[in-house]
Amino acid sequence: MSPRTPNLSQATAPLTRDVTVSNEFGETSVIQIPAERDLTVYVDKRELVTLMTLGAHPEWLVIGYLLNQRLVPSIDAIESVTVDWDVGAASVKTREGIDRIEERTARRVVTTGCGQGSVFGDLMENIDQIRLPVDAGLRQSQLYGLVNAIRLKESTYKSAGSVHACAVFEGEELLLFVEDVGRHNAVDTIAGWMALQSCSPQGQRFARTDNKVFYTTGRLTSEMVIKSAQMGVPVVVSRSGITQMGLEVAQRVGLCAIGRATNKRFLCYANPQRLMLDAVPQPVALVD
Amino acid sequence: MSPRTPNLSQATAPLTRDVTVSNEFGETSVIQIPAERDLTVYVDKRELVTLMTLGAHPEWLVIGYLLNQRLVPSIDAIESVTVDWDVGAASVKTREGIDRIEERTARRVVTTGCGQGSVFGDLMENIDQIRLPVDAGLRQSQLYGLVNAIRLKESTYKSAGSVHACAVFEGEELLLFVEDVGRHNAVDTIAGWMALQSCSPQGQRFARTDNKVFYTTGRLTSEMVIKSAQMGVPVVVSRSGITQMGLEVAQRVGLCAIGRATNKRFLCYANPQRLMLDAVPQPVALVD
Repeated sequence: MSPRTPNLSQATAPLTRDVTVSNEFGETSVIQIPAERDLTVYVDKRELVTLMTLGAHPEWLVIGYLLNQRLVPSIDAIESVTVDWDVGAASVKTREGIDRIEERTARRVVTTGCGQGSVFGDLMENIDQIRLPVDAGLRQSQLYGLVNAIRLKESTYKSAGSVHACAVFEGEELLLFVEDVGRHNAVDTIAGWMALQSCSPQGQRFARTDNKVFYTTGRLTSEMVIKSAQMGVPVVVSRSGITQMGLEVAQRVGLCAIGRATNKRFLCYANPQRLMLDAVPQPVALVD
Repeated sequence: MSPRTPNLSQATAPLTRDVTVSNEFGETSVIQIPAERDLTVYVDKRELVTLMTLGAHPEWLVIGYLLNQRLVPSIDAIESVTVDWDVGAASVKTREGIDRIEERTARRVVTTGCGQGSVFGDLMENIDQIRLPVDAGLRQSQLYGLVNAIRLKESTYKSAGSVHACAVFEGEELLLFVEDVGRHNAVDTIAGWMALQSCSPQGQRFARTDNKVFYTTGRLTSEMVIKSAQMGVPVVVSRSGITQMGLEVAQRVGLCAIGRATNKRFLCYANPQRLMLDAVPQPVALVD
């Protein structure tokens, strides 16, 4: 049986803002910078956290945040999410409350990396219970298709810079592309969207995780890898590199971690057996 | 009278780690990635937070973290910092305890951006009490010297990538260069080092803040700008761009925010009157 669909507001706000800058010649001009707004999350009228976000998909962000922090067991536990930008608040109503919320939000870990965040609870908790399917993976040709699809995207980044993008793919098919001022927000937003898909019969295809690939413009930090593994997504691709804890977690859970992915180049940091090399580039000298 | 110098351990640990990767041809090779270790901070035997860090200067990092979070009023309040990498712990002893520590660490804000962190308390608290000196600033020629000094640095980044760098300058003179997996750690480490300088007569020059400039490879987020302003540093320079909240804070406190600084190019986002244009590049067409 599908989970019940929560009631969601559809709050919108501008994603960029015009600002006047001066350059090395002393000339002034107007450019765009990404919006950044604070969104204080209240769960059953109790203040939980304030997220700094671009604001493109605040309801998905809040759902994904609660799921990835393991504060709710599934989307079925969420009755409604109401975002009001006038007051910068997201009001979450759960169906049955959150068990031991005081205790579970008491421990903080300040994680690494571009746009990470504070994580409640033990970062490594549950990691050893994660089993990613042995035969899940990606073909090199799909990886190249994925990198190319990203190259054609990135709208706020292209217009205003200073945002991170995450995306979820099935093979080379781009399902959702999300930008935010912090990449933890972008991946949480994707998690929220995927969970919502599980609420409808036609969304089941998008909610399935073991045949998906995550892409991020940011580094593969432990938090990124843990979130991907927790969601059951077996492959993560990044334009950037990896951190030591990110690598350790990827090795421990069997996740395929690919970084430095641009054009035809990449480095596979962990579990290369999940990547089928079906499109090895020709050495340059042999191209006619 | 100078503050008393805290007793500090001198914990060291390797900054990079060799890992085996495979590339697009299926070839394996050994590369270096930055180290990343968790450091749990205990204050007077009470667990406060876990920081994920490269580990280059853990004692300075802890001091700067406590100061920038406003958990201690000054370095004089810290009796000792003892870091033990075997257990990943930093044990802080204060001279007189921290007033209302439970209450003051209760509120969390998840901030934006590459390597930011969790901030206790109200992000904007005290902002309006900050007065940066009106006539403090930087010359364009110094800015170019500063950017060039950074170009010649960045050792862990050059060898292993995936770290952020921060630096503190007096004019174009580089005083301290710090890399970390999160740039909030890098700026906190600088803050800790500067506070330590204030404990000795010969360090006073380095502890003075109103004639200093911060450099960061990361974006100018609100947290970066607030930390700089809190410390009294009136100019921040970045290779990257700025976020909306970063800009708002810079405007509010009168901080000169310069981004996109590479070679001879830059954009001044806020308070350009602090930047004296003494080295305007010649238009290309006029160069013979």
